[in-house]
Amino acid sequence: MIGGGQGAFIGAVHRLAAALDGHYELVAGAFSSRPETSRATGEALGLNPERVYGSYQELIEQEKARPADERVQVVSIVTPNYLHFAPAKLALENGFDVIVDKPMTFSLAEAKELAAVVQATGRRLALTHTYTGYPMVKEARQRVADGALGPIRKVYVEYPQGWLSTFAEGDADNKQAGWRTDPARSGVAGAMGDIGTHAFNLLEYVTGLQVEKLCADINVVVPGRQLDDDGAVLLRLSNGASGVLVATQVAAGEENNLRLRVYGEKGGLDWQQADNNTLLLKYLDRPTEILRTNAPYLSALARHNARVPPGHPEGYLEAFANIYRNFALTLQAEQAGEIPSPEMLDFPGVEEGVRGMAFIESVIASGRSEQKWTDFTV
Amino acid sequence: MIGGGQGAFIGAVHRLAAALDGHYELVAGAFSSRPETSRATGEALGLNPERVYGSYQELIEQEKARPADERVQVVSIVTPNYLHFAPAKLALENGFDVIVDKPMTFSLAEAKELAAVVQATGRRLALTHTYTGYPMVKEARQRVADGALGPIRKVYVEYPQGWLSTFAEGDADNKQAGWRTDPARSGVAGAMGDIGTHAFNLLEYVTGLQVEKLCADINVVVPGRQLDDDGAVLLRLSNGASGVLVATQVAAGEENNLRLRVYGEKGGLDWQQADNNTLLLKYLDRPTEILRTNAPYLSALARHNARVPPGHPEGYLEAFANIYRNFALTLQAEQAGEIPSPEMLDFPGVEEGVRGMAFIESVIASGRSEQKWTDFTV
Amino acid sequence: MIGGGQGAFIGAVHRLAAALDGHYELVAGAFSSRPETSRATGEALGLNPERVYGSYQELIEQEKARPADERVQVVSIVTPNYLHFAPAKLALENGFDVIVDKPMTFSLAEAKELAAVVQATGRRLALTHTYTGYPMVKEARQRVADGALGPIRKVYVEYPQGWLSTFAEGDADNKQAGWRTDPARSGVAGAMGDIGTHAFNLLEYVTGLQVEKLCADINVVVPGRQLDDDGAVLLRLSNGASGVLVATQVAAGEENNLRLRVYGEKGGLDWQQADNNTLLLKYLDRPTEILRTNAPYLSALARHNARVPPGHPEGYLEAFANIYRNFALTLQAEQAGEIPSPEMLDFPGVEEGVRGMAFIESVIASGRSEQKWTDFTV
Amino acid sequence: MIGGGQGAFIGAVHRLAAALDGHYELVAGAFSSRPETSRATGEALGLNPERVYGSYQELIEQEKARPADERVQVVSIVTPNYLHFAPAKLALENGFDVIVDKPMTFSLAEAKELAAVVQATGRRLALTHTYTGYPMVKEARQRVADGALGPIRKVYVEYPQGWLSTFAEGDADNKQAGWRTDPARSGVAGAMGDIGTHAFNLLEYVTGLQVEKLCADINVVVPGRQLDDDGAVLLRLSNGASGVLVATQVAAGEENNLRLRVYGEKGGLDWQQADNNTLLLKYLDRPTEILRTNAPYLSALARHNARVPPGHPEGYLEAFANIYRNFALTLQAEQAGEIPSPEMLDFPGVEEGVRGMAFIESVIASGRSEQKWTDFTV
Repeated sequence: MIGGGQGAFIGAVHRLAAALDGHYELVAGAFSSRPETSRATGEALGLNPERVYGSYQELIEQEKARPADERVQVVSIVTPNYLHFAPAKLALENGFDVIVDKPMTFSLAEAKELAAVVQATGRRLALTHTYTGYPMVKEARQRVADGALGPIRKVYVEYPQGWLSTFAEGDADNKQAGWRTDPARSGVAGAMGDIGTHAFNLLEYVTGLQVEKLCADINVVVPGRQLDDDGAVLLRLSNGASGVLVATQVAAGEENNLRLRVYGEKGGLDWQQADNNTLLLKYLDRPTEILRTNAPYLSALARHNARVPPGHPEGYLEAFANIYRNFALTLQAEQAGEIPSPEMLDFPGVEEGVRGMAFIESVIASGRSEQKWTDFTV
Repeated sequence: MIGGGQGAFIGAVHRLAAALDGHYELVAGAFSSRPETSRATGEALGLNPERVYGSYQELIEQEKARPADERVQVVSIVTPNYLHFAPAKLALENGFDVIVDKPMTFSLAEAKELAAVVQATGRRLALTHTYTGYPMVKEARQRVADGALGPIRKVYVEYPQGWLSTFAEGDADNKQAGWRTDPARSGVAGAMGDIGTHAFNLLEYVTGLQVEKLCADINVVVPGRQLDDDGAVLLRLSNGASGVLVATQVAAGEENNLRLRVYGEKGGLDWQQADNNTLLLKYLDRPTEILRTNAPYLSALARHNARVPPGHPEGYLEAFANIYRNFALTLQAEQAGEIPSPEMLDFPGVEEGVRGMAFIESVIASGRSEQKWTDFTV
Repeated sequence: MIGGGQGAFIGAVHRLAAALDGHYELVAGAFSSRPETSRATGEALGLNPERVYGSYQELIEQEKARPADERVQVVSIVTPNYLHFAPAKLALENGFDVIVDKPMTFSLAEAKELAAVVQATGRRLALTHTYTGYPMVKEARQRVADGALGPIRKVYVEYPQGWLSTFAEGDADNKQAGWRTDPARSGVAGAMGDIGTHAFNLLEYVTGLQVEKLCADINVVVPGRQLDDDGAVLLRLSNGASGVLVATQVAAGEENNLRLRVYGEKGGLDWQQADNNTLLLKYLDRPTEILRTNAPYLSALARHNARVPPGHPEGYLEAFANIYRNFALTLQAEQAGEIPSPEMLDFPGVEEGVRGMAFIESVIASGRSEQKWTDFTV
Repeated sequence: MIGGGQGAFIGAVHRLAAALDGHYELVAGAFSSRPETSRATGEALGLNPERVYGSYQELIEQEKARPADERVQVVSIVTPNYLHFAPAKLALENGFDVIVDKPMTFSLAEAKELAAVVQATGRRLALTHTYTGYPMVKEARQRVADGALGPIRKVYVEYPQGWLSTFAEGDADNKQAGWRTDPARSGVAGAMGDIGTHAFNLLEYVTGLQVEKLCADINVVVPGRQLDDDGAVLLRLSNGASGVLVATQVAAGEENNLRLRVYGEKGGLDWQQADNNTLLLKYLDRPTEILRTNAPYLSALARHNARVPPGHPEGYLEAFANIYRNFALTLQAEQAGEIPSPEMLDFPGVEEGVRGMAFIESVIASGRSEQKWTDFTV
């Protein structure tokens, strides 16, 4: 693991997600650019001190030097955005498979270069767009693909949070707020990069469509903030459908309420993270149906990503763990000389990473434009 | 009553709403431009046949000719949009107070002229924007006015319906679909006029703010349709806040799910018509509260508009009836030489009607523009 | 109207419910045993002072003396329980049809005698068990009757309120609490009579089954109170199914949350008053369905009792009004020499009244018994 | 681990729960009484074949023979009920701490004997009553203890499931249904043992009160079944409060909807597993509050049992893992010579196990009795 030192949020989540299914063992880490923090984190996690490193370069170099059956197999990168690309590239080029937190890189240019590295090295890369890991999101995708809604006409995706309603980055102890609102570490976007990309990924994953044009209203609401903390985007999709994407971090009192609604000629679907085990299917002429995680009537894709019987709520960590698990199953299958099943291969990767960075740059460009529509360019 | 012949939807609703509190008695009508329909409707309603007229002109003329204490006091106009202005003007000019369905007129020009007539005649006009009649919408307005949320930053209002997902106007028996999608009877807008104006009115009523600029994506989704059946609008409000308004009639499987969310510096609120007796108040640092119709902790404004104890659900007809009741209380107070209380005067009127028509014309103009922002002009 | 003077709760509800559909006009009343209160109420309601009476005897006598086409047709009795029987009997015996609030009488003996009077006079009597007036309760009954759930196995009905959590009857201004906790005016039961009977009626109405045995835990929770304010009852039904009925008025913080769940061999249903426009249908092997008021897929029985399109919430007053409306339609049909349709005849009557009083007496007897099971005796 | 061979449900859950926080490593197992199943399970789990045993006796004997720092520290017993006592006793007596699935034993007599063994050996035992592991259940307990509701008056706990609506045990492949409905493996109770004990444990945990008397209606609904699949129980608690406990496995269409409601003089609370991250707090005179997992305003006890920020749903596995985690933290503290904190010690243990078995035997005895009330005897 690279990053995830004490006090970080997402590093701990990666560790929980990796541990759940027993496919991963954490054996080495460069948890912080400050050696003492890295060391303390490693000790708290019970790691062999020899394998707790002071930098990602050191980690990759020394792990590579170990015998093949004793070195790390997968490098997980959980640093702030500006520190994704370099370690990912180095890890891939030295023969490691990579899991990287989203957004994939600091810029679209980096993302494209990383895609080329993946291509050139033949290694695998997973991107932790957690929300598409939920079983009922899988079911939503499957139903759309099966034509249950008919051709898609409208898409609404929204992601309201309230945690940046105040100038939280003014508090030096608030490391999350600090780097996420800092252009030097986060990139050209704040809310749009942090959560807008999740909403965008969810939309494209479920509909199987691509955004082609957008019209963005991008705002910095809290005085003194350097990056956007709020935005709304009108969308045109590849089949002519239209949509709206909302992402805000100043919706005071909201937690983390990602929601997707999709409507086609024959019906609609509604999923929200706060009630993640439920998917509503709506129809023109008959009652709305409540689909539930791991119910026997669900698709193989959805059930593959569930762990306990219906009525035993699964949550965020399980969704996160699905990315880790599917990535492990894919690697194991390939190591065994088998072709991974579609269910195994169903995790976000470098293509989603490139599109996510293109979304960030397009949406910020649109926000600055006086023209209504801006092309989504990759 | 003018309009509301057999088969019409909103006429029957007006009659139920007027009857509920006993302030109105239906004594005369010109229910249809087809005399036989008017006559049959009058008969079914048990009216004196002498007071069932073949045209609105006839109704106004003959009722005016009756002794003052035997003539109608209020004229309710429930015709399609293109038939609002003329009877409203005639009624006002002949000394009748008027209740008119929304949108107030066929065009902004008509709306402004009607405002002038109201001004000149000194009569009163009520506009049936039903949704602001709900007790918990009143509470929302009061809380915002009292500063419970702090200065407003974000507003989201959405109004998804699914009933025009098919080419319903192709069915001659579907009179609702017929006139609402017909530019000659509905005006320049379809969905934006029919339900977008409700969403707009709700937003301005609760926040006390005004829309100043907008950026609209207006669509005709169903092939063959003449007017918009779908749209999304980015908003700028008078205090610099931003917002999103969504109105669609092609969200297959949706009923009538108007919802408003407002966020300020200190918290947010969430109200939806499908659960109209609940208002959620959200806070930065403490638990969300569930406010309920007619609870003792509500404002006088909200409680004035409720009829039964908490836990006895009130609904759409009661909200509609609140407009009728407050209008009647206002007229009664004035007839008694008293000044109506703020609670009595709390019904939508000609100013809201003008702004609603300005919304329709601005939003359609924006939809046709390549520029991002269009001024909201009255 | 007999009872319903100023300050009373249910009298005002009856007036709203009667007014809604235009089938009734309030023309006479004996609103209170105190003549000045009766007079003031009549004046506030705009009644002819000649037809505002000082006692129910006077009302019945003098109305009967009027010409047939000028006298009241239906007498509505909205007094406390101990004043139901005598005016109902007198009205029936003098040729008036009667609507009476629940529970029907003060005792089972009175109820049986009233049933005999109905039988003997051939007049009609309606009992305002409001909750079975909801459209989705009608749908529930229809689905059970159609076998959608298979043979019924389990029934849960609960009715928690919190308004008697304190010694409210100690406040002389709280007239509702006063008479409802007073054995001299309410009868042998408090909560079980006031709301337990609603729960019981709902259960028998929807399932079409009858309670045959019960085992009750009846409590007086608030110190100083004279009648039960809380209870739970185990049930045996006529087909061998079992159930639980809960009614309490000391569930602090609860409003009025009547809920019914029924399970059969093939599925279950769930309805609650707080979300009265929704009925959940659950199945062994497929997704739960959300049925909604006035949707096209509902039964004729349910749609007959709805007034506005799906998505326009109907509420308590509309449910109440359905009893009034169906009673009026029945009387109108009979006056026209027609046989009322099953939909018209679908209102609670004297049989439900007798069973309700039997429930009250059986449940109180069981509460006092050391034996587990007590027969439900009529 | 003892039990949990391939095809078992709860064994896999224990493994996921143990893995999540990294406190446990699965190193040995006697997964089945059939050696080949045990071996195959061990292999699938990647265990050292030497430490995959054919019987629990063998496991305990051989692990004990290993050097202290190489042997298992905690024995997890996930077999059917009839196979809890013997391995638990043997493990404790040989110096191992024990985690055992609920109900703790086959009979109350066994439970008491096991309590004596725990006492005598000084080892620790945890009992996996999962549902009290949820953060919001912890908060509920804390709020009651802090007096937020005032003295408790009413308790309702219900646990409806539908999975035994058919004669599932007739299908030889349905191992879950097989042993849970078999008196030789499950004990004197079916539903009351399997889920009634969870409901009972939840009630006593949250309220801090004890059941003193009960009146049970116990049913075998599905023809041919040997043990109860349904029941309802009236309760008297130690402070004089009353309650109702419902547990059924024939509520067709229900998943696993454990719900607890508690009412005191000042307010009430409502928690349900299907929405486990929410706790509703209700008050006599102010709005209901929605408390949410890991919000900053929660108690230390609740936050100790949460892992991710508010709005990132936690679920069943996390609740289960809390028992494992708190047990590990307790053992670690003790090994370090420290006194475990109250938060660490907050897991169900042998006392809860004894009371659970007493509940089972009392409730079955009451079900057979003609008397209304049966003493709860331990």
